[in-house]
Amino acid sequence: MRLLIVSTSSIHGKPYLTYLKDEVISFFAGKNLIFIPYARPGGITWDEYTAKASERFTEWGFNMRGLHTFENPIQALKEADGVFTGGGNTFVLVKTLYDLGLMDPLREAVQNGLPYMGSSAGSNLTGLTVRTTNDMPIVYPPSFDALALVPFNINPHYLDPIPDSTHMGETRETRINEFHHFNEQPVIGLREGSWLRREGESLELKGPLPARLFRKDAAPIERQPGDWSDLL
Amino acid sequence: MRLLIVSTSSIHGKPYLTYLKDEVISFFAGKNLIFIPYARPGGITWDEYTAKASERFTEWGFNMRGLHTFENPIQALKEADGVFTGGGNTFVLVKTLYDLGLMDPLREAVQNGLPYMGSSAGSNLTGLTVRTTNDMPIVYPPSFDALALVPFNINPHYLDPIPDSTHMGETRETRINEFHHFNEQPVIGLREGSWLRREGESLELKGPLPARLFRKDAAPIERQPGDWSDLL
Repeated sequence: MRLLIVSTSSIHGKPYLTYLKDEVISFFAGKNLIFIPYARPGGITWDEYTAKASERFTEWGFNMRGLHTFENPIQALKEADGVFTGGGNTFVLVKTLYDLGLMDPLREAVQNGLPYMGSSAGSNLTGLTVRTTNDMPIVYPPSFDALALVPFNINPHYLDPIPDSTHMGETRETRINEFHHFNEQPVIGLREGSWLRREGESLELKGPLPARLFRKDAAPIERQPGDWSDLL
Repeated sequence: MRLLIVSTSSIHGKPYLTYLKDEVISFFAGKNLIFIPYARPGGITWDEYTAKASERFTEWGFNMRGLHTFENPIQALKEADGVFTGGGNTFVLVKTLYDLGLMDPLREAVQNGLPYMGSSAGSNLTGLTVRTTNDMPIVYPPSFDALALVPFNINPHYLDPIPDSTHMGETRETRINEFHHFNEQPVIGLREGSWLRREGESLELKGPLPARLFRKDAAPIERQPGDWSDLL
C-alpha cells in the first residue's frame, strides 16, 4: 500500500501545495491522477475544486481529472494510476463517498496498490474513523467509519495549546483525550507542514516538525520525523 | 417556553458558573432542579459531573439531582421543576439522550413549560440540529437533530478570527458559511459571556457582548444585547 497523508494543503505564506512539490513528484512519478473533490472547501463546486488542484498538478507535469467526471467512477478507480483527495469538510466528503457507493471501491483500489494522497479531510479518510476530525458536522453521514488504510486515526492541523489564551473551548489535546474515553486506537496529531508516507510496511514522518502521538491511558508523546513503522 | 441558552459555563478567571449567579437565581427561583450530566466534559462520570454542578447550585439555595439517579427518568422529567444540561461533548450528550430514549420526553417537557437551562453542549441541544457544534465527533449519534426549541442553531464559544494567526484551519465564520451551503436555518454565534433568555414569545440577548447572526446567502451581522424576539 502506498499513502501520502498530509496535514494541510497549504502552509502559511506559500501557494497551494507548493511546499510539497518534491514529495508529490517523487510519490506520483509518471502517473495519471484522479482528483476527489467531494470535501468542497468553502462550499465550492466539484468542478471549481478540481480546476484548482489540476492547475498545480498540471504545472508539475501530471494529467489530472475529477472523479465526478467519469461515467463509471468505480471503474475509473480500478483503472487509475493515482488518486488525490483534497481537504475541506470531512463530513461532506464522507457522506458523498457513502452516498455514491464509492467508499468500498476506493478502499479496495488503494489496498490493491493505487497510490493515495490525502490532505486534511483527505487524510482523516485514511484513518480507522473520522472521529478525530476538527471539522463542523454540517451534514450527517451514514457512518463515521473511514478507509482504515492505517491502524490509527489522524488529527490534521494539529494545534498546540495557545499560551495565555482566555478562550474556554477545549484544547485539541483535551478533545483527543476525550476521544480516548470512548475509542481505543492511537491518534497521530499531525502539525501543519508534516506528512506521513507509507510504502508497504514502512511508515515515515516527514517535514520539519515532530508529531504528537496519543494512546489510550498513556501520556501523549512527541516523536521526531523518521521511521514510524512500529505504528503499522 | 422558558429557556436559558448559555455560551459557556465558565468565563476566563472566574469559578464555574459564578458569572451567571443572578441570572440563574432569577430564572429558576424556588425550583427543584434536575441536572443532565451526559455530555461528560473530560470524560468524567455522570456522578462526578452532577457533584460539580450540584455544589454550585446548592450554594445558591437550590436542590439538584442527576437525571441518571432516577429509576424512571421520563417520569422525573414530567414532574421536574427545572432542568440544567451541562456542557462537554455534544456528540456524547446527543447519543446518550437518544440511546436512553430521552430526547422526545425532554422536548415535550420543555414545550409543556419545564424551564430549561443549557450551557455549551447543552445550548447546542436547544437548536434545530447540533450541526454547528465545535466539538469533536468522538461517538456516532443516531441523528444530529436536536430539541428544536428555537428556530435556529447555536454556535457556542463563538470565536472571532485571531489576528495574524498563521494556522490554516478554517475560522469559525468560514465553518458556519460552509454550514449554510447545506442548511437553511440562521445560526447565532454566541460569544463567551453571552446568553439568550427565552420567555414565551420573547427572546433576549444578555451579557456584555454583541452576538453574530449568520443567515444563508447574507453577510453576517453583529447585533447588540437586547430584544431578539424577531428570531422566534
